[in-house]
Amino acid sequence: MTRFDPTDHSHRRSNPLTGQWVLVSPHRAKRPWQGQQEAVSAPASQAHDPHCYLCAGNVRITGERNPDYQGTFVFTNDFAALMDQVPAAAPASDPLFQLEAARGTSRVICFSPDHSRTLPELSLPAVRALIDTWSAQSAELGQQWRWVQVFENKGAAMGCSNPHPHGQIWASDFLPNEAATEDRHQRDYFAAHGRPLLLDIAEAEARAGQRIVVQTEHWLAVVPFWATWPFETLLLPRFPVQRMDQLDDARRDDLAHAVRELTARYDNLFQCSFPYSMGWHGAPYDANDPAPWQLHAHFYPPLLRSASVRKFMVGFEMLAEAQRDLTPEQAAERLRALPAVHYRGG
Amino acid sequence: MTRFDPTDHSHRRSNPLTGQWVLVSPHRAKRPWQGQQEAVSAPASQAHDPHCYLCAGNVRITGERNPDYQGTFVFTNDFAALMDQVPAAAPASDPLFQLEAARGTSRVICFSPDHSRTLPELSLPAVRALIDTWSAQSAELGQQWRWVQVFENKGAAMGCSNPHPHGQIWASDFLPNEAATEDRHQRDYFAAHGRPLLLDIAEAEARAGQRIVVQTEHWLAVVPFWATWPFETLLLPRFPVQRMDQLDDARRDDLAHAVRELTARYDNLFQCSFPYSMGWHGAPYDANDPAPWQLHAHFYPPLLRSASVRKFMVGFEMLAEAQRDLTPEQAAERLRALPAVHYRGG
Ligand SMILES: O=P(O)(O)O[C@H]1O[C@H](CO)[C@@H](O)[C@H](O)[C@H]1O
Ligand SMILES: O=P(O)(O)O[C@H]1O[C@H](CO)[C@@H](O)[C@H](O)[C@H]1O
Repeated sequence: MTRFDPTDHSHRRSNPLTGQWVLVSPHRAKRPWQGQQEAVSAPASQAHDPHCYLCAGNVRITGERNPDYQGTFVFTNDFAALMDQVPAAAPASDPLFQLEAARGTSRVICFSPDHSRTLPELSLPAVRALIDTWSAQSAELGQQWRWVQVFENKGAAMGCSNPHPHGQIWASDFLPNEAATEDRHQRDYFAAHGRPLLLDIAEAEARAGQRIVVQTEHWLAVVPFWATWPFETLLLPRFPVQRMDQLDDARRDDLAHAVRELTARYDNLFQCSFPYSMGWHGAPYDANDPAPWQLHAHFYPPLLRSASVRKFMVGFEMLAEAQRDLTPEQAAERLRALPAVHYRGG
Repeated sequence: MTRFDPTDHSHRRSNPLTGQWVLVSPHRAKRPWQGQQEAVSAPASQAHDPHCYLCAGNVRITGERNPDYQGTFVFTNDFAALMDQVPAAAPASDPLFQLEAARGTSRVICFSPDHSRTLPELSLPAVRALIDTWSAQSAELGQQWRWVQVFENKGAAMGCSNPHPHGQIWASDFLPNEAATEDRHQRDYFAAHGRPLLLDIAEAEARAGQRIVVQTEHWLAVVPFWATWPFETLLLPRFPVQRMDQLDDARRDDLAHAVRELTARYDNLFQCSFPYSMGWHGAPYDANDPAPWQLHAHFYPPLLRSASVRKFMVGFEMLAEAQRDLTPEQAAERLRALPAVHYRGG
């Protein structure tokens, strides 16, 4: 038999942050696609849309009127999945049917009053202002809640119903599954090695080089070794930091550069507004010892072959294990080869 | 404050098979939907489509011609994600970058030569024949592979590119993530209680009644207490059995009834060909002690409100925790209220 070649032979890789494996089948990238095509959303053309419930000055479904905001604008979600007033549930008697009350809050963040510009098309100061909003919101909500999940669903393929640039924050009195899993793995690694797992990963990825997509003075975006989505990235600080509100000015400015470049490269890949879900993870706000944690952002974009052909995580993926066709190294190489400036003009 | 009411208040439920939680926000079912609409696939009208690569007698992309099959037809996937000849990978030296070679095989099962009939529209003997095929394939592949994953992706929304009724089998020399997780939880429960977890669950659900969708002499389909997808179901045997090939004739006949009724109720819900991914889990073929395991099938259907509006598992779900809007009890009640016979005529 020939020698093992990761660009040709099926293999599995392990994610040290979650303990999950991903099946990589690089030879399968050749199969033809006859399935569903995604709608490619045309970029919005107007800076203000009178029918958009997120635009400045417009009235929302509740009858409330948005202020004439200039930068970012945050309000409580009109259909919040989490609310702060929930009575306690009686303790479940049957171990098979465990249930607990869930409390929290859910907010919407408009990134900009400009209806027509997504994240990579905002100016650098506007992206910096968004980072400040993410940070201030996290710090504020962290005083009341255990976990603060900042995220953005971008594009119709990711369940987003409005092209106006916006994201969400859901804060909760419980540690969600993913947070609990990452907490456990980072603590175990710290106990064994005395260093934060994700700081070691940032250094190892910087040394290896082949999975880097964006590299700035303080930040690194890589297609992680264990990426499950075709062009998934992990945005990592190159210095120890547990939560967003600890970032100083220089590192926020540098982060604005990194976020803008990463999302511009995404849009440039298929010359479209690249759909994804992204979000920030940092030390839980009730952590006694946050040292094992590193702040980081995950980007989970579904597109695989073109602006209209996505990867489906179905069947084998739902029942057995995530599976990908191109290797993370190949994905990083493609993103790296693109211009750092947005195709619609920086 | 009022008393806790699971049909009104946010809460979390725990899945004893995986240890994961799901956030239930029943009040959110009221929010309006302005996002992506799924394509509703019109049922295929011809029993034989000359352009379908799964129809009997047609030529596939490889140049191979399908036989004139009458019942089910199984062949090796022309773009298999798993193959049996993969050289061993060198042991990974860095604990952050773990990789191992993956071997296996991947087959396609045509359920019937009739291009126009999906599972619930097949005759009872045809569904029974499919169960025999699933079973024989699992037993055969189990002699060589550790895990045999039988599954079906149905509908364009679930990445299925051909309406011809078919499913897949991926067999592997490793225990995939989901299998390993279910293995651990079933073993822990068995060690603590001396009984299979899923047999206790079947009995508890039969007693509770409110989450039952289909009940036959030997089988039970429920929207499990911890369902994440809106109309997710779990198909359970009401007797101890670890793998499909152990089923006797009576239980196979009865299973054909249960599968046909469950999938007919699904189609009846929104009067469409209801998309889903489904698959079977049974004891790993290398298990020294299969006793903690129970054979079962998961159905993961994405539709939420209508034939064209699905639940998106994005943003908060990907980064934090699965979330659902209607309660499992409400979902079960709706499926139970529908006719057991397919809307296009039994
Ligand atoms: O092999 P198929 O049916 O073309 O592919 C489909 O099912 C596979 C197994 O669940 C997935 O990995 C693919 O993303 C999906 O498109
Ligand atoms: O609140 P939205 O943006 O309408 O809803 C979207 O994001 C939520 C959080 O990820 C998901 O639960 C919904 O399924 C999705 O449609």
